[in-house]
Formats: sequence, C-alpha cells, structure tokens
Amino acid sequence: MTLDVSVVGGSGYTGGELVRLLLRHPGVRLARVTSSKMAGLPLHAAHPNLRRATELKFTSPEDLETCDVLFTAVPHGASMGMMGRYMSLGKKVVDLSADFRLKDPADYPKWYGSEHTAPDLLGRFVYGLPELHRAQLKGADHASCPGCIATASILGLYPLLRNGLIDPRRIIVDAKVGSSAAGHEPSPSSHHPERSHVVRLFAGTGHRHTAEVEQELTFGERPRVSLTVHAIEMVRGISATCHAFLTDGPAGRAGDKDIWTAYRKEYGDEPFMRVVKDKKGVYRYPEPKILSGTNYCDVGFELDPLSDRIVVVSATDNLMKGAAGTAVQCMNIMCGLEETAGLDAIGLHPV
Amino acid sequence: MTLDVSVVGGSGYTGGELVRLLLRHPGVRLARVTSSKMAGLPLHAAHPNLRRATELKFTSPEDLETCDVLFTAVPHGASMGMMGRYMSLGKKVVDLSADFRLKDPADYPKWYGSEHTAPDLLGRFVYGLPELHRAQLKGADHASCPGCIATASILGLYPLLRNGLIDPRRIIVDAKVGSSAAGHEPSPSSHHPERSHVVRLFAGTGHRHTAEVEQELTFGERPRVSLTVHAIEMVRGISATCHAFLTDGPAGRAGDKDIWTAYRKEYGDEPFMRVVKDKKGVYRYPEPKILSGTNYCDVGFELDPLSDRIVVVSATDNLMKGAAGTAVQCMNIMCGLEETAGLDAIGLHPV
Amino acid sequence: MTLDVSVVGGSGYTGGELVRLLLRHPGVRLARVTSSKMAGLPLHAAHPNLRRATELKFTSPEDLETCDVLFTAVPHGASMGMMGRYMSLGKKVVDLSADFRLKDPADYPKWYGSEHTAPDLLGRFVYGLPELHRAQLKGADHASCPGCIATASILGLYPLLRNGLIDPRRIIVDAKVGSSAAGHEPSPSSHHPERSHVVRLFAGTGHRHTAEVEQELTFGERPRVSLTVHAIEMVRGISATCHAFLTDGPAGRAGDKDIWTAYRKEYGDEPFMRVVKDKKGVYRYPEPKILSGTNYCDVGFELDPLSDRIVVVSATDNLMKGAAGTAVQCMNIMCGLEETAGLDAIGLHPV
Amino acid sequence: MTLDVSVVGGSGYTGGELVRLLLRHPGVRLARVTSSKMAGLPLHAAHPNLRRATELKFTSPEDLETCDVLFTAVPHGASMGMMGRYMSLGKKVVDLSADFRLKDPADYPKWYGSEHTAPDLLGRFVYGLPELHRAQLKGADHASCPGCIATASILGLYPLLRNGLIDPRRIIVDAKVGSSAAGHEPSPSSHHPERSHVVRLFAGTGHRHTAEVEQELTFGERPRVSLTVHAIEMVRGISATCHAFLTDGPAGRAGDKDIWTAYRKEYGDEPFMRVVKDKKGVYRYPEPKILSGTNYCDVGFELDPLSDRIVVVSATDNLMKGAAGTAVQCMNIMCGLEETAGLDAIGLHPV
Repeated sequence: MTLDVSVVGGSGYTGGELVRLLLRHPGVRLARVTSSKMAGLPLHAAHPNLRRATELKFTSPEDLETCDVLFTAVPHGASMGMMGRYMSLGKKVVDLSADFRLKDPADYPKWYGSEHTAPDLLGRFVYGLPELHRAQLKGADHASCPGCIATASILGLYPLLRNGLIDPRRIIVDAKVGSSAAGHEPSPSSHHPERSHVVRLFAGTGHRHTAEVEQELTFGERPRVSLTVHAIEMVRGISATCHAFLTDGPAGRAGDKDIWTAYRKEYGDEPFMRVVKDKKGVYRYPEPKILSGTNYCDVGFELDPLSDRIVVVSATDNLMKGAAGTAVQCMNIMCGLEETAGLDAIGLHPV
Repeated sequence: MTLDVSVVGGSGYTGGELVRLLLRHPGVRLARVTSSKMAGLPLHAAHPNLRRATELKFTSPEDLETCDVLFTAVPHGASMGMMGRYMSLGKKVVDLSADFRLKDPADYPKWYGSEHTAPDLLGRFVYGLPELHRAQLKGADHASCPGCIATASILGLYPLLRNGLIDPRRIIVDAKVGSSAAGHEPSPSSHHPERSHVVRLFAGTGHRHTAEVEQELTFGERPRVSLTVHAIEMVRGISATCHAFLTDGPAGRAGDKDIWTAYRKEYGDEPFMRVVKDKKGVYRYPEPKILSGTNYCDVGFELDPLSDRIVVVSATDNLMKGAAGTAVQCMNIMCGLEETAGLDAIGLHPV
Repeated sequence: MTLDVSVVGGSGYTGGELVRLLLRHPGVRLARVTSSKMAGLPLHAAHPNLRRATELKFTSPEDLETCDVLFTAVPHGASMGMMGRYMSLGKKVVDLSADFRLKDPADYPKWYGSEHTAPDLLGRFVYGLPELHRAQLKGADHASCPGCIATASILGLYPLLRNGLIDPRRIIVDAKVGSSAAGHEPSPSSHHPERSHVVRLFAGTGHRHTAEVEQELTFGERPRVSLTVHAIEMVRGISATCHAFLTDGPAGRAGDKDIWTAYRKEYGDEPFMRVVKDKKGVYRYPEPKILSGTNYCDVGFELDPLSDRIVVVSATDNLMKGAAGTAVQCMNIMCGLEETAGLDAIGLHPV
Repeated sequence: MTLDVSVVGGSGYTGGELVRLLLRHPGVRLARVTSSKMAGLPLHAAHPNLRRATELKFTSPEDLETCDVLFTAVPHGASMGMMGRYMSLGKKVVDLSADFRLKDPADYPKWYGSEHTAPDLLGRFVYGLPELHRAQLKGADHASCPGCIATASILGLYPLLRNGLIDPRRIIVDAKVGSSAAGHEPSPSSHHPERSHVVRLFAGTGHRHTAEVEQELTFGERPRVSLTVHAIEMVRGISATCHAFLTDGPAGRAGDKDIWTAYRKEYGDEPFMRVVKDKKGVYRYPEPKILSGTNYCDVGFELDPLSDRIVVVSATDNLMKGAAGTAVQCMNIMCGLEETAGLDAIGLHPV
C-alpha cells in the first residue's frame, strides 16, 4: 500500500523539508506541493537541494485534490481559516502551524494576540508529539505538530515532571536557536552581516511556545515555565538548556540514579530519543550540529552536587524533529506504517 | 610621565591583547614581553596582528627587569609560585591569572583542586573590577583581574543584588563563550571541524568562576549562583544570561522602574557600562559581536509580566573587559592616569 | 546477495564517512572497522553521529579477516606497505589513500617526496573515478580513489579538455576547501580561533593533487595545471574555480552552445553529475553547502564575452564524492550492484 | 587646526565606517551626517557600535552646510547628479561611489549600463589610491575612492605590471568577498540561512571593478584582467588571488629576487602596505581576518618552480582600506595632515 500525500505551503523551509523526506519515504507517493507564489515553477526553484530529485512543480492551492494525508505548512493564523477545506481534502491532516496546538481557546488571544476563529476544531487535533501521545495518535485523523522550541523543552523536562522530581513552579528554559527557525523571508534581522555570529536575545520572556510547554507538562498543577530564547550562529538546530530545582519529596531529594531511572523509563523504547551523558569526549552532551537532517532529540543532564539544581540539555534539528520529521513520524503512526519509515538518516560528522 | 611596563607570559591570547593595548596607550612605554618558548622571536610570531606595529622581541622571563607596572599573564596555578619575584620587580603588579582572585584560601582546594601556596599574599590583592572596587584600586599596588565569565555575570547582577531586588538564593547564569576563552593551545575540543558551530555544554554545573561571582556579590548572605557555561560559535565574546526571581520586599515586588533606577544608580557614571534596552531595532539588547576590541560591558534586562522572573543579559569581549582591557583599566586607576586611556576604541559594525 | 565489507583505518574522518554509508547500504554487511588506537571502543567514541546506529566496536588491524570488499583508509604512505596483506584479505580492495593514484612511479618522489615501495602494484589499480573509468571499474579488483581536490578539478575540466575546447597549457584552478579536508588531528593551524573565518593560502603552487589532475586530463599532450588551494570557513566541501583560455580551433573559438554540448555529452547520463547554470536565483551555480552528505559533483560555467576566458566552477562534499562516496560508488560498480545504491541521499536546505 | 567635515549618506555601511573613523580622528570635527530616511534619529539607530560614542543625530541632506571636507557615500549612480551641489558645499570632496572612478566616459555605459550625466567633472577627480597617486592627491580638491575589489587587485598586481614582470594579456583575479561588500539592504541572497557558509560564484566574469583595475594598471598596453568574484563566509574582508604568467624579458624570466625587489621598491615606504611572505607559521600569507578595522593591505606571492606562473595574494578590510579607510587617508594627504592620522588601529587577534 502506498499513501497518496500532498503538502500545502511547500515553498517555506518546513514545507521543503517535508518534501525532502516524503520523496525518500518508502510508503508514500508525493502527489502535490502547493505554493501560491511559485505555482508552475519546479520545486528546486525554492529548494535547490531538490534539483533532479523530482520532476514535480508547485501547484496552486486551488488545484489540490483529495489525498490520504495532507500536510499543512502554512503560516500561523492562516491555517485555522482553511482547516475546514483541508479536512475535506485529506483523509488525514497533519498541521504544522501553531493554530491547533493549544487546547484552551483562551490561550490564543493570550499568547497569539487574537481570537481563534475555529475553536470547535481544536478538540479534534492530537498534539503531535509521539513520545507523549503515541496511543492517541494511532488511528487519529488529525494531528497538530509542536513548535520547535517547545519540542526540545518538553522532551528535556518530561521525565522529570512526570515523575515529580523537580519543582514545577520554578523552571527556566534558556534556548538557543538557529536562523532557519525564523523562516525564509529576508528581514533586517536576518541580513547576514547583522545575523552572523550573534548571541541575540530574541525573546527574553513571554515566548509563545511557553503556552505549549506548560500545557503538555501539566501533571496536576500547571507548571510555571520561564522561556528565554537566543538567536545564535547556526542555521539548523535548537539547544534548550533547562534549569530546574529538585524537589524534596517524602523519599528525599532525587539523586543521579533516580534521574537516570526516569529518563530510561520514559525514553528507553523511544526510537528517536537518546540520553547523551558521557564521562569524557568532545560530544558527551547533546549537540545539535551532528543532528542536522536526523529525527533525533538528544537529552542529557547534570546534577549540581553543591545545590539543588539540575541542568538538562536537549538538542534537535528544528526543521526535523522540531517540525517536518515529527510530522512524518505522526503520519507513520496515524497510518499504521513503521514509525521510523523515511526517518532513519544518520547525522553527519564532522559537519 | 611615561610608565615603564612589562608583560610576563606574553605569548598567549591574553598577553597578546595586553601588548596590543599597551603599544597604543598614551601613557606607557612597553619595555619587555616575556615568553619562555618564544624568547628571541619577534612578537608577531605569536601575534600576527602586531606585524610592523613593534620591533620588540620576546625575552626570556629570566631577563625581566624592574618596572613601574608588571602585568602577569601566566597560567592559573603558575602565578602564585612566582608572585614573590614579580612583586620585587614591579612597583605595581596586575595579575591576570585566577591565583589571587579568591579571598578565602579554603576556596582554592574547593574550586581549583589544590591548596594555595602563597595564602599570605591573597590579602594584598584588590579584586580588579573597577565598577565594584574603584576606591580601593586608587593607589593600590596589586590587583587581581576577574575571570571573563565572572566579569559578565557580576556586572549583570550587581545592581540587583546590591539593592536587594532579587532572591540571592536562586540565581541562574546561563553563559555562552567563544573559542578564545579556552586559550591558544590546540586540543581535540578546539579542532575546527569539531568546534565550529557547536552549542556545547562546557560546564553544566560547578564552573570555577562561580566562586568569584558569589564572593563579589555577597551583600549580607552569600548568594547561591548556579553557573552553566556553553561553548558556541564565536571567537571573542561572552554573553551571560542571568535568570533571577524578584523579591517581595516590604515595598512590594520591584517593577521596571525600580530596576532601571538600580542600574542607573550603579552604572550611570561608569565609562564602560552601557544599559542597552531599546524598544526596537536589531541590537536592542547587549550583543557581544559589536564589542570586539572594546572595553564595554553592555547590560540589559527584561521583566516577565507573567511571573516573578527577571532576565538580565550582559555582553563583553572576553579578552578585553574580560581580561586585558580591565587590566589596563586597573593600571590606569592604580597609577592615577585617565581611566579610559588606551581603551577608547569604538567597536566595529558590521563585523 | 549481501557483501561482507570491512574498513581499515576507521577512526579518521574518511573512515567514519565510509561507515556511515555502509551502515545504510542495502547490499552490504559491515563486518569490521579497525583502529589501532581505539580498538575495543564503540564506533561512536570517534564518530558521535553513529551513537545507537550500530553496536560495532573498533577492532585491532591484526584481527581483520577475509571479506568481499576491503576499504583501506589509512594515511598516505602507510597504505603502500600494507597493500600486500590487504589484497590477501579482501577479494576486492578500494584504497582511499594517495598511494595508488599515480601510474608513473617517478611521480611519487616528485610530488610526495619519497620513493614508492610497491611500484609493481601501481598497475593493478584503476583510478577510481567512475565518470572517467567506469568501463575499467566493472569487474576490477582494485581501485584507488581520487583526492578530493583532484575530483572537483578533474570533473570540472574533463569535458572541455576531452573535446579540445580549452588550451591545455594554461589552466588555473583556484580551489577552496573546508577544514575537514585536513583530517582529524588537531594542530595550531586547525585551532578554532585561528582557523575560523580565514581565507588562508594553503598551497599557492605545487599542491600534490596537481599530479593526479594532469595525469587524468591528458588527451595527447599532458596539460599544465596550476593548482592553488585556499582554506576557508567551511567544514565539508570543496569549490574549485577553473580558469582556462578557449582554443581557436579550425572551427573557430567555442561558444556557449559548444560548451553546453560537451558537458551534456560527457555528463548527461551520469547519476551524480549535475550541470548547474541558471539565469536567476540564489543557487544558480554550484554551491558546496547544499551538497553535504550527498554524492553529487555539481559543475557550472561562464564564458567571458569580452575575452577568451572560461570560468568553470565545480562543487562537492570532500568526504563524499571527494572520498567515501566515490569509494562506495566504485564498490557498487566493481561488484555489479546498482551504482547509486546507498548514495541517494538528498542534500539539506537550508543548512 | 581642526577640519570641519561632514558625511553624506551616513546610514549605509561605508558611511558608518567613515563616522567611526572621523569620531576618533585627531584633526577633524564631525559636523553633520545625513540620511534621508533616518533624519532626526541618533547615529546608533543605524550603527549600534556608536552608542554613546557621539550625541550626533542624522540630519536631512537638505540641511547640509559648507564644510572643509565632504565625504559622499551615496549609491552608485546617485552621486553624479548631486556632485555639483556637493562641490559647492565642500571645499574638498571625497567621493566613495563609483561615479568618478573611470576617466573615459565611454566606460560608464559599457560597465555600468548607462551614460554618465556629468562627464565634464570626471577629469577633476584624482583616483584616490595613495599608493599610486599620492603626488596628485597632495593639494587636490576632489578624489574618487576605488572599489574594494579593485583596491585589492590593483595593489596586488601593481609592482609586477609597473616593472614589466608579468604578461599583461593574461591576468586572472579570483576574489573572495564578505557579506558587507553587498551593502546593508536585506535580500534573498543575503538572508542568513542562504548566505552563511557559501562559496557562491557572485560574478564569474564581467565584474564592474574590472574597468578600474585595467585603467589603473595600464603601463603602455592596457592589460586584460579577468576578474571572478566569490561570496564566502566572512562579513568584512577581501582576499584577491591574482594568477599571472611571468614574462620572458631580455634579462630572462623574473625570479624570486626580482619579485621581492619590485614589491620593496613600490611599497617599502608605504605606511599601509605590508609584504607578508613567511617561511612558516599559520599566518605566513595575507589573511583578511586579522585586518578588520585596520587600514592595511597585505600582499604576498609565490612563484611556481614548475611553471611560469606567479600567485599573488592580497587581503584587506573592504570597509577600511577598501572604502572608508582609504577615503580618510586621501583626506589626510589632500589637507596636509599626517597620512596615518586616525588610521593607526592595530588589528585583533584572535578574532
């Protein structure tokens, strides 16, 4: 069985990454890739890496036809208005915008600045993070993929919060992101002489992904996560350093062994999660640069022997596990394919 | 009056930066620059930027003579054993190693792994951070310059702790440093294919500079600072993001205005401190890349309206304000020269 | 049928890249990877990207056993002395050193500074560039893979020289290479603060790969190729800009159409050669950065309407088409596998 | 005596660099800096490095007043139409556009695509390269500063052509430039994810600076220079590799000693020219990265012992010696100031 899939909004970076994956996926046939602006042009006009990899051309969104799986990679805010039509075209829909990530409609005006225009659809989407929601994704028709910074933050902290090892009220995430996270539109802040080699405070406080992180890490009490985001010299990749304070539970404060146990319990069987925590070597903690093009999210941690603090580092490719890779992983689960199909690339080293 | 100055340990990065500054300083004559390994070679054999800027050659440490000011830029651990001799040669000594930064001898085995061999000398050194100790530095004979990460961390947090605005028990510093901070010796971790474009967790917890930061930020209770250091793609530069929790004092929790007041009070007259906090623009917060070669430490902050958190960012050039620049600033103050003499370079943009 | 393959010298960058490819190759089983220094350690101790991709550990070279294909990735000069043993172990041997590239033994003292110690073996190796020697490689037992700069230079110039379109006596190649081309051993020149962002004249004249380029591009008269190599900011990748002067043949000087004809004739059916020459767009000429991890060599050209000059640009990943990728391609041809097996990765964009 | 100077077109990168230099120049007072778009805003709104270095604000071009020296840094094509007014305002004018570089009006339609609108003014400008035209610049009223790539190319080749050591008919310049050379306007080609780490063929043939290079290097026969320009990962800096063929003169072909003699003769007394050609070390040839912020143009060369080829490398900071630095140097000469005034910064290392 080969699935017929299409991509809406294929000229952006996330759309291009979806196409790259789908062209090599053993279980699908890529039918259409839409772009209003580039309809009629070959895909490699937007994605030079696809030269000769496909003869497909961009089609107009109006020319979309029904398909087994529809990936929607349109800008935040644009997806909610079109989702009715998308749902009628795709037997299954995997949305990569922010429009269906938050369960509570009140979170949209709070974090995104405007009311949600299709709040009745929110409940129909599974939050597309297989490590947390695999059971729900099996057989689901609609998934909404997490934000890239949210992915790294959630996956770093999940085993600790789920197992009650850290104080949920005082969590700090200091994230570093590459330039592709800001999309493909040029701007003064993305101009190479200004953007290269910066350590730029992009969002000191109040980053939108905070809402997703808190939503997904709620086990009883909603946690209070302070998310700070810096833009640094990198094109792909996210590194999220999570600073948290250990709880003093009835069994005493967690030690190294308890932390290991929690990570192994939650991630031991996960195909794309690796705990990276070596005693020596240059790559003894998660490092985004060797994850480019892979679907891994590596996590590692260190306990401060002098205090009650734990530092967790998680790293991922923002366009892969942070976007298109997770989207394909969701499709695989939703459609009963092998979960790792099309996602088994080994990263490059050196690079 | 022209001061006669010499540099011990001139072949490393810090030593080279001292030479660069001293060659253009209007009040000094650079007499000798020592290097055991490179004695007899021209300075530009180690520092290619000095080609034609000077005819000086490296001399052997044995050939040192007395001078007005002696800068000692030898490795940590090597300075303490030689300091007796250095003090007999230089009327004033400015040390750039870690050997005389900590006041309590017990801190050396704890943070540096071995006993201090000249503990009686510790009390004779002023901690060479003019923004905190200018009065003491005036007329002082011996100064010990801060570590580069310590400089950025202390200067970011000082106004908040001095004025009781944040909780001293839960301070987190997430620092990002460039490759020159690790010195000039090649190693597997500094090899370009491995070091370039990393977001490497260099020290999750327990970085040595923690000791200095806590020492200098003690106002009553010794604070608890958790310092995490990442190596990122950058050659010069440090960016320290300090995450702290506001106190609920008798006058209520500090607001934006209180914070501004504190920074203006402490840094309003400082020649090398700028509060950078604009409402728009690409460089609205401190950015190390435009500070290369300057002696500035820029600081900025953001309050989280949804929580009790404050984020402070400070940025500096690790070889300038983080080392050689502060050393020259100390000399200027100790010797009664204009404090900014030789340090007024404007940074480059773009770069 | 699954081939049993082993890699000698697996701890370097080329060896690691071979392993990465072979682990995902549908027609082979990777049996052994040797390293004297790292025997007993898991492969990811040298190649962090292989974490969890394999359970293999490095074995000692002494523990090698017979196999279908043996890839030898030992340093230049070391391969010639061991080749007798390698040939007795591998039914087929693909050598990645420089030791068997040159056909004339006299070229070794001239270009490599010492006599060849196994000159009788030279004739048994096919120069492993499929685009020039595919017919010879079919069924061959021994191949010697080209140097990375040689690959880019030869593939850029081959259609022009083979078809007599440029003057063979005045060819200039201005090559730019990334840091991985210098191998995995740290040195003062590879130290990140010194190596990053350079435009370093690595070899003004006399680069060793000149010998291969001239050897392979001899059609009648041996050409005179002047090869200049710069190290620039890049980890993977080679870009070779070839400057040549058009000949004034009996049919007049070649024009744009003649050049296109030559490239299409030679490369029209090649699976890994793309002529990249667009009228607009950001990637209208070959660009190494989007080739990382792929086996492509992209070529493009421009004629100067004001003179008799042609500029040819070729780009490739120095560890792939410049080393391990070509080695696997050779194996595929030598063993009758699909030529593109294990080599069909699409490059990343953006990256 | 302090000169009153102003800058027209101060919001671009070249204008910003002029301001940076003029603010620290001991012999001038910076009166006005104009920008149509940013009039009324502080200079640091465009140039963040100038924060606190000056209280000046941008003024409208209409508000210009008479001054001793007027630097005009407006876009190519815009300067020629305004030059009448500029000449009436500035006793001396230093133009940084391309509009007055070429002596022959016919070169403008040929290389810039349109007729010159003020051809009568062309003869009034000295080509502002002091190393070639110092005598003419003394006391001159108008200078036109060279293009950045032209500067590096001319200074690399000048001693060879002036002394008849190379064949003027077959000169190839393979130049590498950083991103600031393309100016401060964002575009798809300058977008960080696309621009970073490229080796992009920017101009295979026909780059406009060819005209200047040929004009200035004409000693008898006009030379034929083929100029190829690549954009590489770098913000500031130009490296021009000149490939040329030695002539067989009556006294035989030039050797290493003859070449040294020529460079020493032409540049031995030049304050900003260094011949960099060491036998060992990492920086044994010109390297742009250590020239950022300096006014040096470093040149070096290598003779091919196996052929008649010479390779010359020249390196400079495109915004300094390639633009604003040379402009200030011209002003110093034209006004009788010390030639190096305001230009004696030592470069940074490491950086």
